Amino acid sequence: MTRAYNFSAGPATLPEAVLRQAQAEMLDWNGTGASIVELSHRGAEFMAVAAQAEADLRALMSIPDDYAVLFLAGGATTQQALIALNFASPGQVADYVVTGHWSKTAIRQVRPYVDVHVAASSEEPDGGFRSIPPRAQWQLSDDAAYVHITANETIHGVEFRDTPDVGAAPLFADFSSSIASEPVDVSKYGLIYAGAQKNLGPVGISVLVVRRDLLERAGQPRADIFTYASHAARDSMLNTPPTWNWYLLGLTVRWMLEQGGVEEFARRNAAKSALVYGAIDGSGGFYRNEVAPAVRSRMNIPFFLPDDTLTTRFLSESKAAGLLALKGHKAVGGLRASLYNAMPVEGAQALVDFMADFQRRNG
Amino acid sequence: MTRAYNFSAGPATLPEAVLRQAQAEMLDWNGTGASIVELSHRGAEFMAVAAQAEADLRALMSIPDDYAVLFLAGGATTQQALIALNFASPGQVADYVVTGHWSKTAIRQVRPYVDVHVAASSEEPDGGFRSIPPRAQWQLSDDAAYVHITANETIHGVEFRDTPDVGAAPLFADFSSSIASEPVDVSKYGLIYAGAQKNLGPVGISVLVVRRDLLERAGQPRADIFTYASHAARDSMLNTPPTWNWYLLGLTVRWMLEQGGVEEFARRNAAKSALVYGAIDGSGGFYRNEVAPAVRSRMNIPFFLPDDTLTTRFLSESKAAGLLALKGHKAVGGLRASLYNAMPVEGAQALVDFMADFQRRNG
Repeated sequence: MTRAYNFSAGPATLPEAVLRQAQAEMLDWNGTGASIVELSHRGAEFMAVAAQAEADLRALMSIPDDYAVLFLAGGATTQQALIALNFASPGQVADYVVTGHWSKTAIRQVRPYVDVHVAASSEEPDGGFRSIPPRAQWQLSDDAAYVHITANETIHGVEFRDTPDVGAAPLFADFSSSIASEPVDVSKYGLIYAGAQKNLGPVGISVLVVRRDLLERAGQPRADIFTYASHAARDSMLNTPPTWNWYLLGLTVRWMLEQGGVEEFARRNAAKSALVYGAIDGSGGFYRNEVAPAVRSRMNIPFFLPDDTLTTRFLSESKAAGLLALKGHKAVGGLRASLYNAMPVEGAQALVDFMADFQRRNG
Repeated sequence: MTRAYNFSAGPATLPEAVLRQAQAEMLDWNGTGASIVELSHRGAEFMAVAAQAEADLRALMSIPDDYAVLFLAGGATTQQALIALNFASPGQVADYVVTGHWSKTAIRQVRPYVDVHVAASSEEPDGGFRSIPPRAQWQLSDDAAYVHITANETIHGVEFRDTPDVGAAPLFADFSSSIASEPVDVSKYGLIYAGAQKNLGPVGISVLVVRRDLLERAGQPRADIFTYASHAARDSMLNTPPTWNWYLLGLTVRWMLEQGGVEEFARRNAAKSALVYGAIDGSGGFYRNEVAPAVRSRMNIPFFLPDDTLTTRFLSESKAAGLLALKGHKAVGGLRASLYNAMPVEGAQALVDFMADFQRRNG
């Protein structure tokens, strides 16, 4: 079949131009006689690819020079654990703001290492999350190692629409599902981390942006491989990095720059999410999204039909129509459309057209 | 250019058939309308790919049912740290046998967690490693959490040619650069781990084979993401795994089975290494390998020329002849040929032919 519109929450759709380039270069990268996945990470060829990816990501996100950028194997959950090991003393207080599933996962990873203080939570009696606690209600600690937020909740579809001021403690943020989707003032954060598989490229690599002075913190006893300062000192080549994933991330970031950078993607992401929320809100209740409008996610839109029979039918018919992976996460149910950077506006339009047609036939 | 013979120590050469399949499927995997790197790890399509890779690896390595097989993001260095966290109590003794650079790296990762006892070391006064201490000389602890060996030393070119009997403590082995290169009796080991980027496929994923009863050990306080038992309980999908890397590993393992399995690769690897060692030993001292013949690695062959001028010339001329990545690791210098499963016998023959010609012109 031809390429479908893939609304997967991650791993997620990639730019077709990036996949075509990776395909063309698969057996022979740049005339070397070998694939990029076969080249030594210590060779001049891959070192140049890696350095270009960092330079391009710095340009894309306007990352200040006093921030290190690390490219690390694995996903964001590993970083959730490592931030406590690297930046908090054993048992020190760390403040967490809980706005959905991934905020809770972040807390679970660090309980062995820090004294977790939930500064605020928007969890509702039914276990759902449909809002973000107003900043004025947060109970921040006086001496927290850091304050942690989840910039966008992939499962619950709740997104911070501005950067909270948390005072003296550095603000750490899980940006896994919204990194580089709009301009962000990095200097307001002590640390930003993200698995790459939503907005930055392929699965299997994470990006960590950290203010360099924080790398001097002693943290907790740990292996060298768990030490961000060691990774920073070796340009993320402390051990063999996931080179192919880094390469594909680099191609994706370059593509984003060529498309117009984060300003352009902010425009597209606003347009895409406006289309889908408009279709939901204009359906007279046939489709429902329950998140407070001011903090609705531009990236992940969970929505519901009146009953499970319709949900099942929607999933099978949308898949047949070339609209993939619209099933909601099991923690929430229903449907979910993820609209990351690589999803074109045409994809959101195709979804909205399908939604209207489905309602006509079933509403 | 056409495909070269790539002697990189890792990331390393892959079977051309595997790269061609990955290339063909890059934009549309199996008629799904999406690349495998864009598919959800929770979807039926990728779940089947993952399960097939495990089944094929179990068949390839004859892994008993009472062993779990984990597919984990990142490289072997991370596993070196995690084995102590998972299988040793805080400060418990762990025995290490030191036979090269990677044995020492393994120790460095666990010093914060265990009482490291070096049961034996073949380090020489000049810092080199050219042998393996005879088993009779090992000083094993009475109550070690485990005994750790490095089955093959990628940098120093020293390889265990049999499995040592270490008594009651489970034997843990870093098989990063020799996994699935010949038949191994897995039941003699408590745990085997390996980065995949040498013999099993692409960089960015590691394989861990562990006797299931060991997963019941309490280990040390740690995050859930660092807990092997949690990964095992979720079929290595505790968090988003490196799906593309897992897929490419699966293609490579399937290719190995189709080629005849580990018996066939044992034959090829013996033939390849015999060719290169034969060329070295038959050169009248022009080429030198310093490792004790009984423990010479079949996978990584460090060798030396009489002087640095010749070494530089050898590297530039061999590269021009389509023989890539023959530079030795900086810790050892000289040259190194890595002859993993995906290197055909023809590649070793081409190297040997070049070595003879180079000697004729420069000897």
